[in-house]
Amino acid sequence: MTVRQKLYEGKAKILYATDDPQVLLTYFKDDATAFNAQKRGSIEGKGAFNCAIASHLFQQLEANGIATHFIDQPSANEMRVRAVQILPVEVVVRNIAAGSLCQQTGLSLGLVLQQPLVEFYYKNDALGDPLLTRDRLLLLALATPEQVDQLRTMALQINDFLKSFFLQCGITLVDFKLEFGLDHHQKIILADEISPDTCRLWNQGEADPTQRVMDKDRFRHDLGDVALAYRQVMERVLQQTL
Amino acid sequence: MTVRQKLYEGKAKILYATDDPQVLLTYFKDDATAFNAQKRGSIEGKGAFNCAIASHLFQQLEANGIATHFIDQPSANEMRVRAVQILPVEVVVRNIAAGSLCQQTGLSLGLVLQQPLVEFYYKNDALGDPLLTRDRLLLLALATPEQVDQLRTMALQINDFLKSFFLQCGITLVDFKLEFGLDHHQKIILADEISPDTCRLWNQGEADPTQRVMDKDRFRHDLGDVALAYRQVMERVLQQTL
Repeated sequence: MTVRQKLYEGKAKILYATDDPQVLLTYFKDDATAFNAQKRGSIEGKGAFNCAIASHLFQQLEANGIATHFIDQPSANEMRVRAVQILPVEVVVRNIAAGSLCQQTGLSLGLVLQQPLVEFYYKNDALGDPLLTRDRLLLLALATPEQVDQLRTMALQINDFLKSFFLQCGITLVDFKLEFGLDHHQKIILADEISPDTCRLWNQGEADPTQRVMDKDRFRHDLGDVALAYRQVMERVLQQTL
Repeated sequence: MTVRQKLYEGKAKILYATDDPQVLLTYFKDDATAFNAQKRGSIEGKGAFNCAIASHLFQQLEANGIATHFIDQPSANEMRVRAVQILPVEVVVRNIAAGSLCQQTGLSLGLVLQQPLVEFYYKNDALGDPLLTRDRLLLLALATPEQVDQLRTMALQINDFLKSFFLQCGITLVDFKLEFGLDHHQKIILADEISPDTCRLWNQGEADPTQRVMDKDRFRHDLGDVALAYRQVMERVLQQTL
């Protein structure tokens, strides 16, 4: 590989071009941000933990019929991915009420939802990634109606898989955020990452609401032992196949 | 009528019981609030202007097949209404982008929408009246799916009527907020008020974006001549039937 050209640096990852225009290289950083980047910090080892977790989960999802951008993991912090055009929506799936859902609706933290809630947010830092109704999403032309339906279907399929997968790891999947992209055939495939940065994960059998947290909420709310939690998620995930 | 019992005092109206349990009396105040009551003030004559405007519009809507809570207007600031159980959702219809829609989506103020946008907000001051997706509305059990569909249908019918009505008044109906209630047969009827407190109204032919405003935005954004604008809306509305 020749000298890499940096295409984009985000809050937790850097995206590089490669010799092949269809292939990009993602570098996972230890940097952490929260509350729309108002809180900043670093979690030692996070880049490698997340890269390993996301790589393993993408492979497992592929094996279960979900198309992802994952190609391979050439090193601890690097993932090679298919080049896609990222859709400017964040798709959130919630199994248990937490975070902004509780703040915005008054629902109690920990309320188990009778069915998964699929939500769309506008991927726009300047606007603070606001919640989108279906009508607003279509008004902003962020996706077509058919794409919205497909995103919802894929998000629910991914939730079904991940919920079972994490259950076997002794972890409750509370909620998570997905990003999708269009490949050069305009096919929707799963992109970005799945990691403790993008999921709420609770240690099963742990009732204490601060002890149970195994995700970025430890960083957001200064719960301590952030890197340890990420490492534990990685160790459990890597041992598991579904 | 005997001594009135105050049932509820809101930001702009007071609700009293009457001798008839099926009938309530609404008193329209001059008090004005904005930005979830962070801004407070008074607009001289507003109570009477809004009571007259709302009474006339409710009568016109009734004549056009929309069921409302309006009974009659016994005095300048008073409206007798049917007792209903108010649904805890605010239904907003938008014809032109303005206000929170622009702030939350980045759409330009004044963008004419290709079709009316019907939105639901949680009527909850403590939570800041947040935008609701359909799924969140149903999750919170604020209405049944059938009620949501009916609210949407009624909101669009009311918009059709009001848009034409205001057009004849030389006023562009930008957006407005409705509240609905269930009567003792569980039938959904239009409640609350329709006035410059609850609508965005722009004077037609006036291009200047501050001059054209004939609604509570004059108060929100300190544009001056607030009472004059309300009075002008009243004068035009009262002369008009559709």
